[in-house]
Amino acid sequence: MFTSLKAASAVLALEDRKAKDQALGNVAAALEAAQEEILAANAKDVEKARSGGMREALIDRLALSPGRIKGIIDEIHHIIGLEDPVGRVKAGWRTPIGLFIEQITVPLGTVSIIYESRTNVTVDAFCLAYKAGCSILLRGSSAALESNRVIVKAIKRGLAEGGIPDAVELADSGSRDEVDLILQARGWIDAVLPRGGAELIRRVVENAKVPVIETGVGNCHIFVDASADLAQGVEIIANAKLQRPGVCNAVETLLVHRDAVRQLMPLLAKRLTGKAELRCDREALAAIGSIPPALVVKDAVEEDWATEFLDYILAVKVVASLDEAVKHINSYGTSHSEAILTNDLSSANEFSRRVDAACVYVNASTRFTDGGVFGFGAELGISTQKLHVRGPMGLDALTTIKYKVTGSGHIRE
Amino acid sequence: MFTSLKAASAVLALEDRKAKDQALGNVAAALEAAQEEILAANAKDVEKARSGGMREALIDRLALSPGRIKGIIDEIHHIIGLEDPVGRVKAGWRTPIGLFIEQITVPLGTVSIIYESRTNVTVDAFCLAYKAGCSILLRGSSAALESNRVIVKAIKRGLAEGGIPDAVELADSGSRDEVDLILQARGWIDAVLPRGGAELIRRVVENAKVPVIETGVGNCHIFVDASADLAQGVEIIANAKLQRPGVCNAVETLLVHRDAVRQLMPLLAKRLTGKAELRCDREALAAIGSIPPALVVKDAVEEDWATEFLDYILAVKVVASLDEAVKHINSYGTSHSEAILTNDLSSANEFSRRVDAACVYVNASTRFTDGGVFGFGAELGISTQKLHVRGPMGLDALTTIKYKVTGSGHIRE
Repeated sequence: MFTSLKAASAVLALEDRKAKDQALGNVAAALEAAQEEILAANAKDVEKARSGGMREALIDRLALSPGRIKGIIDEIHHIIGLEDPVGRVKAGWRTPIGLFIEQITVPLGTVSIIYESRTNVTVDAFCLAYKAGCSILLRGSSAALESNRVIVKAIKRGLAEGGIPDAVELADSGSRDEVDLILQARGWIDAVLPRGGAELIRRVVENAKVPVIETGVGNCHIFVDASADLAQGVEIIANAKLQRPGVCNAVETLLVHRDAVRQLMPLLAKRLTGKAELRCDREALAAIGSIPPALVVKDAVEEDWATEFLDYILAVKVVASLDEAVKHINSYGTSHSEAILTNDLSSANEFSRRVDAACVYVNASTRFTDGGVFGFGAELGISTQKLHVRGPMGLDALTTIKYKVTGSGHIRE
Repeated sequence: MFTSLKAASAVLALEDRKAKDQALGNVAAALEAAQEEILAANAKDVEKARSGGMREALIDRLALSPGRIKGIIDEIHHIIGLEDPVGRVKAGWRTPIGLFIEQITVPLGTVSIIYESRTNVTVDAFCLAYKAGCSILLRGSSAALESNRVIVKAIKRGLAEGGIPDAVELADSGSRDEVDLILQARGWIDAVLPRGGAELIRRVVENAKVPVIETGVGNCHIFVDASADLAQGVEIIANAKLQRPGVCNAVETLLVHRDAVRQLMPLLAKRLTGKAELRCDREALAAIGSIPPALVVKDAVEEDWATEFLDYILAVKVVASLDEAVKHINSYGTSHSEAILTNDLSSANEFSRRVDAACVYVNASTRFTDGGVFGFGAELGISTQKLHVRGPMGLDALTTIKYKVTGSGHIRE
């Protein structure tokens, strides 16, 4: 499996954009043709998951429909429309002795993605990798096994004519040993991307001997500065908490400047009543005043500051200063997405510079951390590490560089 | 130790170039003032190493002299002259809904370098890290312990006025457990760089739970194409083998196209006689013709193709085609520096595209893979991995990016 993936990546690395786009077009057609087969396999996965007691929210992630398959296929055409990230000369210069050095983008090689039950990731990740000239080893959840098998078969059918079918493999034994095998495959896998819950990511990071790109855990904050426009601020907070609470860029803890808390909390309590539970420190709780009958509000405990709720729960803490807010974020945060709401220029600048995170927002919702929103066309995930790539990972994250050095008999003195 | 390094990196990250350069100037002055103390400590290390039976070549790496200290100090002034890699806006754009996104370079954070007995690395690595706004944990060889202690003390004295002394620490317990502690320090160390022999690098890569930048092992090749200018080629080969055989960018195996071998080998044998041993396959051996009396030549064995000799030894193999050369390199090479000698344009292009290495040379010695030669001013090592940085690592390798996203009440629909 590793051998054929590596061999395929060597061939795919030399393909021009036109050939890669044509192959992806064939994949789209093959998936469209296999729609009934895919839906049937997916129905089996869903039935098994349901009888196994999977929560409906997770089943919703797993389940496919003709509309969702159309969405997946549209995404392929979208990726086809993206620029080729390979073969760009990022820099070039002549050294004092006349060596000509060019820094050229090349594919990262063979990548592996270890992910949970979302079947659209199977197609998205393959297409991004193929476009970037990389072969890919997909290790999805065992809950999506039937669906993924049929999808990968269809992809390979699409690649059979003019493409490189060996550029994609599904690790489908379903055993944990298989994951360990991937994590140990030094020399065969150039990077592994865990995409899913905190536990999956921790396990990959702890055990991998191949390079890892850590993704996704987001304990995100919004800091409401004293000068913030509070009416606007309440809408931003509500958006960051309610629009899609189960994702990594949703806000989890609100930090409120002491000078803003008495005005903010009653507005916020009103806005979130019946929609989210609040876990407040004493000062924030007191600032709510008379608590609306339908508002669920609890005393915050230390653990709340460190928790990625991924739910309709918002922790609220009062801080005395921007400095205290920054220190709290840099201590409890996961370097994902952090926002300040302010109308004070120096506060905006200080927050942006001092907060250590992939994405720092001024007067905007944290929910924007996304490859699509950023203009990358599509994304493989959100990197929360500093090495190689930070924030939304698009096609560029699947490339590295090569130096081409041209001489005319140059030797080193 | 980890706590104070992390705290120091947060402060250092916000320093302007002027403050960092001034601090580095103070460090240079402090090292100059401490010269006698450094030489005395180094003499102890050298004496201990010699009585412990260390090879003279290694003692030469360890030993300092007034001239070498001057060289180290000159290097600091050179680093002071380099541009600040931090705070550059690499890209910026406005999204369709008016969010303004900037991609800004920021320091990588806290790095650690684990290295062997060269004491100049202590100063070089610190200065590069400081200039890039990173704190650094230095873990040198126990053989250089006395020298490193005095050097780091002098650096800290230099940083005492206006600098950040906590931005550098020496891990000086000398125990192996200390290395393990560094390798496990997730959340404290943003990247660890092993710099030294293959065994050190393997140990770090196998055991690290923090991100690693793999450096240095170089099993480098030169492929002599049928169209090569052989007189020029012999000089390039001699340079790549003889100029400094103990370093990672020296050539280890020569691959010769069958159509060039009869002409090349007698010239090469003559050029290397008395200077390097040849380990030839049967065809290359036969092509030498009458073997000069002083030439050491042996039959190559399979193991030779995989060996980084780091010595006056050159393996030689005949190949039938460029394709065979590329396959040999991609199979036995370490993705470091690979060269083709040719006058054929399509051969040059095909070799450059197909060989999977950090640096690919056309008609030049592999010995040029070096941060100084490339124009980076100084280097931390040569990365042989694909993630984050590839080839010579200068200041840029010590940075990552942060997205600053500015809105005006933007929420996600």
